[in-house]
Amino acid sequence: MYGVFASIVTQLAGKVGEPYKSFPCEMMVYGEGGVAGWGALCGTLNGGAAAISLLVQNEVERKALIDELFGWYQNTKLPVFTPEKPFFQADLPAVKPDSVLCHPSVSTWIKQSKVSFYSKERKERCTRLSADTARRTVELLNASFAGTSATPLNLGEKTSGCLSCHGKGGVKADVLTKSCTGCHFPSNIQHP
Amino acid sequence: MYGVFASIVTQLAGKVGEPYKSFPCEMMVYGEGGVAGWGALCGTLNGGAAAISLLVQNEVERKALIDELFGWYQNTKLPVFTPEKPFFQADLPAVKPDSVLCHPSVSTWIKQSKVSFYSKERKERCTRLSADTARRTVELLNASFAGTSATPLNLGEKTSGCLSCHGKGGVKADVLTKSCTGCHFPSNIQHP
Repeated sequence: MYGVFASIVTQLAGKVGEPYKSFPCEMMVYGEGGVAGWGALCGTLNGGAAAISLLVQNEVERKALIDELFGWYQNTKLPVFTPEKPFFQADLPAVKPDSVLCHPSVSTWIKQSKVSFYSKERKERCTRLSADTARRTVELLNASFAGTSATPLNLGEKTSGCLSCHGKGGVKADVLTKSCTGCHFPSNIQHP
Repeated sequence: MYGVFASIVTQLAGKVGEPYKSFPCEMMVYGEGGVAGWGALCGTLNGGAAAISLLVQNEVERKALIDELFGWYQNTKLPVFTPEKPFFQADLPAVKPDSVLCHPSVSTWIKQSKVSFYSKERKERCTRLSADTARRTVELLNASFAGTSATPLNLGEKTSGCLSCHGKGGVKADVLTKSCTGCHFPSNIQHP
């Protein structure tokens, strides 16, 4: 969270000054590990959404940008970025998180990379993924300020199917979400 | 998120002044509905954790307070607070969320209350739950500043069992979380 938020806001502090210069960016450290290690919302997305919300006051545009950021994250093989001087030199697999939550995102990556959560590889993966998310957030913000509308979220076949009953206007209308696949489908959720 | 964060920080702004007075509290609207309706981390907890992190710089203490807040939330029948002049007058059931995530927390409550997600009852439930979480966050912060240590998180039998293999020091050590029950146990996750 801190990595994504601070990388955007400290650049604004340098180029624009206030009110970004005095923003207490360090407070955003709380989002690490899906907030204090609870594995909830991926910290990079919590930071990206916070930065978008600081800069975009219009509710419709703010939500559209967060939707596009979250949709990109869960459907993109990550990490993409390879630093020139990484903290830990490794050839890391790029894996589609299929969720916006820290725990399933990391678990899906770990299944493919076959390392421990506490490995240097996993830590390096999350560092690089922070860079990817910061970059994508800035691309979306720049496009928005240049007048380009956000691309509407494609829920996908499975989530659309679920929400046709459980979402707004459905027979049940009993849930709130924009993604069912990461948690509710057997390949991800069942214990082996 | 805004409700919890702003109720704490605007009081500090009134009593202490800067730096709270100029904090752009309105940015915290992004956390509504588990961030822009994605159903991820409950917005009240995102706001409570953000307020704790703004006020508590010590990492160990910050994480301990967030743990205690999150543990309280998932294991307490909520909402407790009944406003004198509610937005919507209703006798709402108090239900243990069993998760820190918006979507399972709301879904568990809806199953018991038998209303639509889009009902006035559900909206009133989340409003009252915001008041409960703001109050609990302030109680924890006050206790911390008065020198009382946070109560260590009790993971519970099921999560402790999972983490004995999957957590730090376990044979697999392949996941990060502090709660497995809300998503991984059949009563909550399986489609009827």
